[in-house]
Amino acid sequence: MAVKTLSVNKDILSANDKLADGLRARFDESKVFVMNLMSSPGAGKTSVILRIIESLADKVKIGVIEGDIASDVDALKIGKTDVDVVQINTQGACHLDANMILAAADDLGLDGKGLLIIENVGNLVCPAEFRLGEDVKVMILSIPEGHDKPLKYPLMFTESNALILNKIDLLPYTDFDVDELRKTVLGMNPGIRIFPVSAKTGEGIDDLTAWLAGRVQGK
Amino acid sequence: MAVKTLSVNKDILSANDKLADGLRARFDESKVFVMNLMSSPGAGKTSVILRIIESLADKVKIGVIEGDIASDVDALKIGKTDVDVVQINTQGACHLDANMILAAADDLGLDGKGLLIIENVGNLVCPAEFRLGEDVKVMILSIPEGHDKPLKYPLMFTESNALILNKIDLLPYTDFDVDELRKTVLGMNPGIRIFPVSAKTGEGIDDLTAWLAGRVQGK
Repeated sequence: MAVKTLSVNKDILSANDKLADGLRARFDESKVFVMNLMSSPGAGKTSVILRIIESLADKVKIGVIEGDIASDVDALKIGKTDVDVVQINTQGACHLDANMILAAADDLGLDGKGLLIIENVGNLVCPAEFRLGEDVKVMILSIPEGHDKPLKYPLMFTESNALILNKIDLLPYTDFDVDELRKTVLGMNPGIRIFPVSAKTGEGIDDLTAWLAGRVQGK
Repeated sequence: MAVKTLSVNKDILSANDKLADGLRARFDESKVFVMNLMSSPGAGKTSVILRIIESLADKVKIGVIEGDIASDVDALKIGKTDVDVVQINTQGACHLDANMILAAADDLGLDGKGLLIIENVGNLVCPAEFRLGEDVKVMILSIPEGHDKPLKYPLMFTESNALILNKIDLLPYTDFDVDELRKTVLGMNPGIRIFPVSAKTGEGIDDLTAWLAGRVQGK
């Protein structure tokens, strides 16, 4: 469908948690399962979302909120599918907050939707601090970023319910140690689910979407 | 040398520019050339710094300030060289500010140093907004992050004096379009220098260090 662009002029930090609680109640009432997807720039958020749409769009009605500092590059990619998408431009702010989602959810419409995917601003730091009323926080770490990232950006790894390890097609060309990564992350966050995938080749996507579909149906 | 860890308890944003002006005057007085190195997590800041040390440490006395939210992983890597290094842990803050550098510069000592490299927190957003008294802002974009990043994180690309395009050894395994990237970046920031390198193989490092050495000698 057509892409809408929403501009948020100010990064309103105060009372984020209260707004997030209200959002969560509204999402629960509408029975929409909400995933807040976070990662560094270029880790593959949009590519993973496109794979999820490809896999689940015939089973559940999906909506996407795209968060970017500027541009609508990602929303245009999502807009090529049949899925409803709203673009938020944060105009400099390095993360989404509950107030932005409140406005975007109105614009998107929740009626009949079973899954709402929020693509946060590409940043491994600040987005982890701002609840958006989501059911699950999911993060992506891509192979070229290196397996030492949990030690350096701990909050993102401890806050997330699932970790998507993307670009595993690049494993042969890097020094990334998947076992070491698993050990570190599970030591920090024993309940986290880890999904090694390649959004490029499709490897591992089935496990990820099966888990997500289960969570959506459980709501 | 031994690695010192410095803790900064609060992210003090106010008066950053004023503090940065004071820092710059102090760096000028000490005749130390300062490079503020920024990128996303995992783009290769520490690996590039190690290459610069390898290339220039016999010509100029180098100091390094390592900025991380948590951990001293990177400072320990730099600490294996002969170069003085101070670690700043921002304890959650997503960027360095001038106040942190003020404290770290005291701890590091500027006397006799010709080049100070500041490795900022891995983040393509906030670090671009905070001046640290530097002579040049240098950013790294790594090939796996994709060539669409300038459109999505414009401030970093317009603020930087030089762009290091790292991990060019991965070009054959990605869809990264170097010509497209050059066109976009030069359209936004015509004066920016672009250095394609591989910190892993060493390709392109000579051009980068020759440019940097010229700037250091010119101060």
